[in-house]
Amino acid sequence: MLNNIFNPKSVALIGASNKPKTVGSGIALNLLKGKREIFFVNPNTPRIFNKKTYKSVLDIKEKIDLAIIAVPASIVNDIAKECVQKKVKGVIVISAGFSEIGNIEREEKLKEILKDIPLIGPNSLGIINPKAKLNASFAPFAPKKGNIALLSQSGALIDAILDLSLNENYGFSKIVSLGNEGGLDLGDYLKYLDDNRETKVIGMYLEGIKNGRKFFEIVKNIKKPIIVLKSGKTDLGKKAALTHTGSLAGNNRIYSSVFKQLGLIEVDSIEELLDTLKILSWLDRCKNGVGIITNGGGFGVLASDYLYNENIKLPKLNRETLNLLNISLMEKVNKNNPMDVIGDALANRYEKGIEAMLLQKDIHCLYIIQGMQIMTESEKTAKIITKLYEKYKKPIICSFIGGTSFKKAIQILEKKKIPNIIEIKRAVKTIKNLTYEK
Amino acid sequence: MLNNIFNPKSVALIGASNKPKTVGSGIALNLLKGKREIFFVNPNTPRIFNKKTYKSVLDIKEKIDLAIIAVPASIVNDIAKECVQKKVKGVIVISAGFSEIGNIEREEKLKEILKDIPLIGPNSLGIINPKAKLNASFAPFAPKKGNIALLSQSGALIDAILDLSLNENYGFSKIVSLGNEGGLDLGDYLKYLDDNRETKVIGMYLEGIKNGRKFFEIVKNIKKPIIVLKSGKTDLGKKAALTHTGSLAGNNRIYSSVFKQLGLIEVDSIEELLDTLKILSWLDRCKNGVGIITNGGGFGVLASDYLYNENIKLPKLNRETLNLLNISLMEKVNKNNPMDVIGDALANRYEKGIEAMLLQKDIHCLYIIQGMQIMTESEKTAKIITKLYEKYKKPIICSFIGGTSFKKAIQILEKKKIPNIIEIKRAVKTIKNLTYEK
Repeated sequence: MLNNIFNPKSVALIGASNKPKTVGSGIALNLLKGKREIFFVNPNTPRIFNKKTYKSVLDIKEKIDLAIIAVPASIVNDIAKECVQKKVKGVIVISAGFSEIGNIEREEKLKEILKDIPLIGPNSLGIINPKAKLNASFAPFAPKKGNIALLSQSGALIDAILDLSLNENYGFSKIVSLGNEGGLDLGDYLKYLDDNRETKVIGMYLEGIKNGRKFFEIVKNIKKPIIVLKSGKTDLGKKAALTHTGSLAGNNRIYSSVFKQLGLIEVDSIEELLDTLKILSWLDRCKNGVGIITNGGGFGVLASDYLYNENIKLPKLNRETLNLLNISLMEKVNKNNPMDVIGDALANRYEKGIEAMLLQKDIHCLYIIQGMQIMTESEKTAKIITKLYEKYKKPIICSFIGGTSFKKAIQILEKKKIPNIIEIKRAVKTIKNLTYEK
Repeated sequence: MLNNIFNPKSVALIGASNKPKTVGSGIALNLLKGKREIFFVNPNTPRIFNKKTYKSVLDIKEKIDLAIIAVPASIVNDIAKECVQKKVKGVIVISAGFSEIGNIEREEKLKEILKDIPLIGPNSLGIINPKAKLNASFAPFAPKKGNIALLSQSGALIDAILDLSLNENYGFSKIVSLGNEGGLDLGDYLKYLDDNRETKVIGMYLEGIKNGRKFFEIVKNIKKPIIVLKSGKTDLGKKAALTHTGSLAGNNRIYSSVFKQLGLIEVDSIEELLDTLKILSWLDRCKNGVGIITNGGGFGVLASDYLYNENIKLPKLNRETLNLLNISLMEKVNKNNPMDVIGDALANRYEKGIEAMLLQKDIHCLYIIQGMQIMTESEKTAKIITKLYEKYKKPIICSFIGGTSFKKAIQILEKKKIPNIIEIKRAVKTIKNLTYEK
């Protein structure tokens, strides 16, 4: 059902426009970047971006899979009726001016008109399917392809996340701006994404959940990791949520305990959402048991504090590992977990430490911290890490902590899907979520 | 006393070297970037970086203000004796191999030898005074000039912070790698920095405090804001600290309550340390009472949650402010605090909202959040913000949340010392520290 919306053969945009920096032109330009048939509907403008326009969707002779409605709210329902008559297979209503501003009646009417056709919105930024080159949104950015699905009750948040992601190496499978969920709701999208091969991990920004029971029933059967950023947790936030999307943000403790019961990973900021999505996009979850290697003792102390607070285990190095290290590494290396290879470590000292730790059975993943010091060989170390990652297949997370000095090294790591997170506290949070078991 | 160390007329480096990527060559190259007289001492190499070398510090005819010792630990004390004989005015011992590895005796001897001369270290990365163009360290980065002083018990952490800072717009007044604090200790540096005109704010990374009573007595009289990142807070972290610097990290609760009593600002990560230093480097502390303006309702909801948890007040918009807004701003703008100027806001809508809020008396600082949406005018908004900041003089913090899209706008803001912090949660943390009163 949703496939016609995410992979349409033909799209009609009702409310297309030539005028720069408007919703109607934003969507039009995004649509034109794809390769499918696009039809622009606008009774007042004969040509838009050098394409002929139609006065009504009913004037188009070809079949329409997806209709996008971006007209003033007052005429949306009339347009929706024409879409039903045209037998489109799915509708996105971009227009705002429905239940989010208290106009429940208008939204109920829309739902009634589109009761047999899947509806995204109203009050939605649109949807994006990078692999199919479908950008049916007015987002000012085109995301990279990848395996992260993103569902959001805030369109602005999608824009910001896409913007941030262009500096990163991960990408997206599907993006949905949920809008008011007048037709399709959170549960419907989650069900679709669970079956969607291109999606490995699902991220959500929520202020409230409309159909709680359905959500619960669907999510409890989903195997893919779901990361949720829920706002409106405090009295102040709830009030703000009410004026934003009209969501009743509900009791925070109940939400959090339901999320926990369902095995969802709850995060507390946009940054943490993206860190966690990145790590679960690239790595598979593993058991609790982390080895740490660093060239800065202070980094190890900080990491130890954070890991302790997150109940992450640091297995002691066993006799076999120590024997290995005693043969290969000099005396002054601090042979513990965290292991401090000391500030003057060249890449080969990291190599010995990393391999010994990866061989220890109860170390299920590795956390490697490196600061740029006078002798640091960052690119060589990065290459060694990718080699050992491919050899031992245990998840590795890195914190190469620096500005531009580690740029190349981080590219080497992330090209092989070894995530680098620049701040130790944030990295430990993602390790917590990586070792999390449903 | 410390002035001779931070602004020396002449420096001798004992243990200078030509060999790339060594401590001895790292310091030598850093020193050569300054304009003072530099003398290299090395009995085995006749010339280093095209400069004549001396076999001993005693062979130098000129007066020496600062001697830097970077030789094997076993001969440090003999060299120190020569420095005393030479009547140098200050000594930095870079060499490791003292109390941090349990060699207490060697360190006691060093202290005895240098009892009448200020000693930094041993086991120190060195010191940096950007304004005086003194880089007496083997840090691989030269920091920008600024008003932030940094004291750290980890040299690697200094390297990482300098590395990170090169991507930022703030800078440093003094940087000290504390080492083992065999001579000068934390209290001495703090006292010096409190009198130092170039320093506005002090940041510290600590694992333990050696002379607690002295620290307490000095800090309680310091007026400048001090931000402290203390690690070794947990059992695991304490163990790691013990193997790192030999510090007894002590009882965390006692530390935190003493910090609080002394009016210190305690932070929990390198990132938070830098965010807070940046904000206090540029802005003056203010009373509790924040106005928020955003073009994304979801951003406002998230911010509200964080502010609530940090006990930051969001004053209600009063009648005067509302009157102003009703005249100047259209109906659909959400005229609350947080104020949502809505996704299609151009710069002028921000202008009206910002000015009205700045005029309200119990709003002591402003937090402006902007995501890049299709109509967003980021640079124009940034210019308006700088103009209103200069007019009303109330602190403004921004979160322009994006990757490269806001690069120019952020430069406009930060050139005028209006800090931009990309993540809302982190920005709110800094607002908490900005509205903090001693």
